Order: sequence, then structure tokens, then C-alpha cells
Amino acid sequence: MPPVLKLTIAYDGAGFAGSQSQPGQRTVQEELEKALQALFGRNERAMFAGRTDKGVHAIGQVVSVADHRPELSADSIRDALNAILPDDIAVRYIERLDWQFHARFDARWRAYRYRFWTGQREPLLRTHAWRVSGRVDVDAMQMACERLIGEQDFAAFASGGEGVPWSERQKAPRRTVRRVFDAAIVGLEPWYDELEPGRLYEFRIVADAFLPRMVRNMVGTLVEIGRGARRPEWVDTLITAQDRRQAGMTAPPHGLILWRVGYGEEPAPHVSKRHAT
Amino acid sequence: MPPVLKLTIAYDGAGFAGSQSQPGQRTVQEELEKALQALFGRNERAMFAGRTDKGVHAIGQVVSVADHRPELSADSIRDALNAILPDDIAVRYIERLDWQFHARFDARWRAYRYRFWTGQREPLLRTHAWRVSGRVDVDAMQMACERLIGEQDFAAFASGGEGVPWSERQKAPRRTVRRVFDAAIVGLEPWYDELEPGRLYEFRIVADAFLPRMVRNMVGTLVEIGRGARRPEWVDTLITAQDRRQAGMTAPPHGLILWRVGYGEEPAPHVSKRHAT
Repeated sequence: MPPVLKLTIAYDGAGFAGSQSQPGQRTVQEELEKALQALFGRNERAMFAGRTDKGVHAIGQVVSVADHRPELSADSIRDALNAILPDDIAVRYIERLDWQFHARFDARWRAYRYRFWTGQREPLLRTHAWRVSGRVDVDAMQMACERLIGEQDFAAFASGGEGVPWSERQKAPRRTVRRVFDAAIVGLEPWYDELEPGRLYEFRIVADAFLPRMVRNMVGTLVEIGRGARRPEWVDTLITAQDRRQAGMTAPPHGLILWRVGYGEEPAPHVSKRHAT
Repeated sequence: MPPVLKLTIAYDGAGFAGSQSQPGQRTVQEELEKALQALFGRNERAMFAGRTDKGVHAIGQVVSVADHRPELSADSIRDALNAILPDDIAVRYIERLDWQFHARFDARWRAYRYRFWTGQREPLLRTHAWRVSGRVDVDAMQMACERLIGEQDFAAFASGGEGVPWSERQKAPRRTVRRVFDAAIVGLEPWYDELEPGRLYEFRIVADAFLPRMVRNMVGTLVEIGRGARRPEWVDTLITAQDRRQAGMTAPPHGLILWRVGYGEEPAPHVSKRHAT
């Protein structure tokens, strides 16, 4: 068996129908496999650590693929792939690992971030932050985040999932239990300093794995709490009810970024600003 | 005569063929005038403080237009226009001023910023920062910036200008003299903290007025100096030569933002990070 390449990739989700191949759609997997085919001279399946939906971005998606160019350095393979790939996708790093490495099955945690903006309409933020009208109570949202942490049944935050094979849906006895290691709301400086401060936020969450649309459904729920329509304790009610219909709306995809994926002994990161490295 | 509305507008340049109306093209002026027509019930010409080229962004473009809805508050007009305008353009503020106010003729200074990134290919930065391969010597670029400051003939940095009416080209005896109040290179934190630090920069410049493509031609020239192909003193040679062909390339439009326009007694801002407010 050849060794495996571990690729860390970034993409702008705006131009993709999602990460996973779908007939007749432009996807990240399809673009990456085309570039790999050009380099390897043969088809090879790319395994993604996390599925991302149409419009969702990534800065630290991890992909594993069999290596058919052992004579090239990892950096040379990265540069060659980047020369082939379109502008909205890039390979950030490559490592060579043991052939048993699998980006998805070996992942210990995934970290996502979701940006939202509570100020006026701003064209220069609109593609990478969800605009939420009016002020939000960040302390209430923070209290709600703390209630998300732990090993719990997140059925209330799972939707979509039509793309998940039936075999996988049946795999675990209670497939909607996940372990959330940390979750927090962090205030960010807008990346144009002419914009109003104190209006840009990021929801950060790290879990062993995520259910379909889990982060976006959590954000929709947290924003309802931030607006005062619900109290932070609502999160407990939703987790107990295990009913998607009771929770908040699905936030739009363009605010979401797959941030990092952790393997082996790498500890799950703290995500509150105080702890962030 | 009715009073005049002073609009401060922002737009994402990617979807526009520039700020000024051109037959058969989607422009900022055309979109804004369509929204004004819907609100006023009549055509009214919008005067822009600065012309921006195809692909150039704005966060503080200023526009003046006659007011035909004196019964509405300035904020109501802003909200009504934003409800009509497409997503990639927004009115940030409106003030009502004396009817003699003209966004272009009354402007005392314009401030532009140009972002560039010297790291690897990053899909999430690519739409708003120019990627420059390899390291640059920021100290050398800074020294070159200082040589741009003052009232000088910037003919070497003027190109394009096909859209400027002949009458205006003839207006001043030496139309390529401009006063640059300040110019500097500032290091920025990338707006995704997973990206390599120390690789994102912004060229900031404030002048009484700008020649066509002046900022982008300066950036192309500064990058040559940053790469060590030329010394900072080259700027003096170019200014003396008044020959566009000797200067650096025209940097691409997507890194450029029209930042602010100043009127009346408002002093031109300092743009180095140490002085920035």
C-alpha cells in the first residue's frame, strides 16, 4: 500500500454546491479529484474529514488520499496541486502519513466558526458574515453556549442529512449524541476599521463530530436567545425534547467556516477569546 | 432649489463595471440612480466624489444628489434606499446639506487603501487583497511612501483616464500635479486568525485628488521596491521623469478601497498605524 497524503485545504464556499461530489454539480471534491488525477495520472478518491454544505467555507478542511507520487516532496505536491486548482480552493499544507490514516474516521474533533454582524447592511462583509438586524444580548448567548457543552443528544439541532447514506444513519444506536468540547461567542474587530465596532461576533464550537446543519441550527437558536425571544435555559429544553421543529431557524451557510480538524493526541482547543492561542 | 443629500455609500466592486454610468454596463451610479428614481419618482443625477474603476471597492464613497423628499428624515431615506438597492451596494449614512454642496467639487481630500498579501494562496482573502508572491521589504516600501508625500507631479503614476471628458483634461495647466498629504504601509492582522501573521499589508494614502489608476500604479511600483528590484529613491526618478512607462505595473483592482472623502475643515487623516485614530 502506498503512504497517504494528509491535505489541509481552504475554500470559498460561494462557488460550490458543497464539499461532497454530486452529479452535475460543482463541488470541492470534484475539483480536488480532478487536480489529483492530473498529478497522479489516475483516479483516486479524496476522503474529507467533514462534509460542508453548499455555500459553507473552509480554512482547515482535512482530506486524505493515497500517494502516487512518492518521489515528490510534500511541498512540491502542494505547489503542483495549487497550480492546477481554481482560485477558490487551495491546498494549505501537505503531510505524508502512514497508509492507515483516514481524514474522516481518524478525526478526534472538528472546530467550526460562524460569523454574524448586527450592524447596518455592509456590502464588504456580506459574503462572510450573516447580517442579524438589531442588537443581541451576548451574555445571554454566552450562557446558552455553556449549556451546549458536554456529551448530549443534539437531535434538536440536526436537519438535512439527506446526503448521508442509510448504512451510516444506522451505524450508532443513538446517532444524534455528540460531545461538544467547548462553545463560545467571541467579539471580533470588523476587518474594515471604518465599520461600527462591537457589532461583529463569531460563534466558535469544537465537538467530536457534527450532525447535519448542527452549527447553523445552533446559531439560529442562539440568535433567538440573543434577541430576548427566549432564555438561555431554552437550550436544555430543546436538548431534552430532541425535536428539530422546536429549535431556531437554520442560519444561512455563508457565515460558516470549517476551521480545524484534530487528530491523535492533539487536544481539542479552547475557543473563548481568553483561552484562544 | 431643494437641499442636497450627502450620501456615504459602500460597495463591493466585484459586480460593477466601475462607479460611473456606462452604456450597457452595470455600474454603481446606475444602480443608485435607479433606487433614487423609485424613491423620488423622477430622474436625478448622482454626483460621485471619486471615480472608481471596474472591480474597485468603496466603504466611504460620497455622493450628492438633490433632495425631492424633504418630508422624510435622512435616516428614513437611507433605510428606504437600502430596501431597494441590491446586496452589493449600501447607503451607510445620509446628511442633509445646503444645496450648494457638491460631492466632487467640494471634496478636500480622498483616502484610499490597498490590501496585499504576501503569503500562500488563500481563497478567503483572494477577493479583497492582491496576492504578491514572496516576502517584501516593508521598510524599503515605507521609505518609498515618504517620497510620495507632498505637492508633486504624478504623471508617472497616471494611466487609463479614457473616461475623463476632454474638457476636464484641459482644465488645469498641469493637470498631473496633486498634493499627497500622507502615505504609508501598515501591517494588518489577517481576518482569519488561522492564516500566517506578518503577511497582510495595507498601503494607505490621502491626497487632495487622484489621477486615473494613481493608487494602483503606485502599489505596483512600491511592490517592485519591496521585492528589491528597485531602491526607494526610484520614486524620485519617476516623479522627475513624468513617464508612466518607467514606473511599475498597475496592481489589480480588487485590493483597492475608496476609504473616506473629506470636506470643509475636516483635516486630512494621518494614515500610519501609530497615528491612526
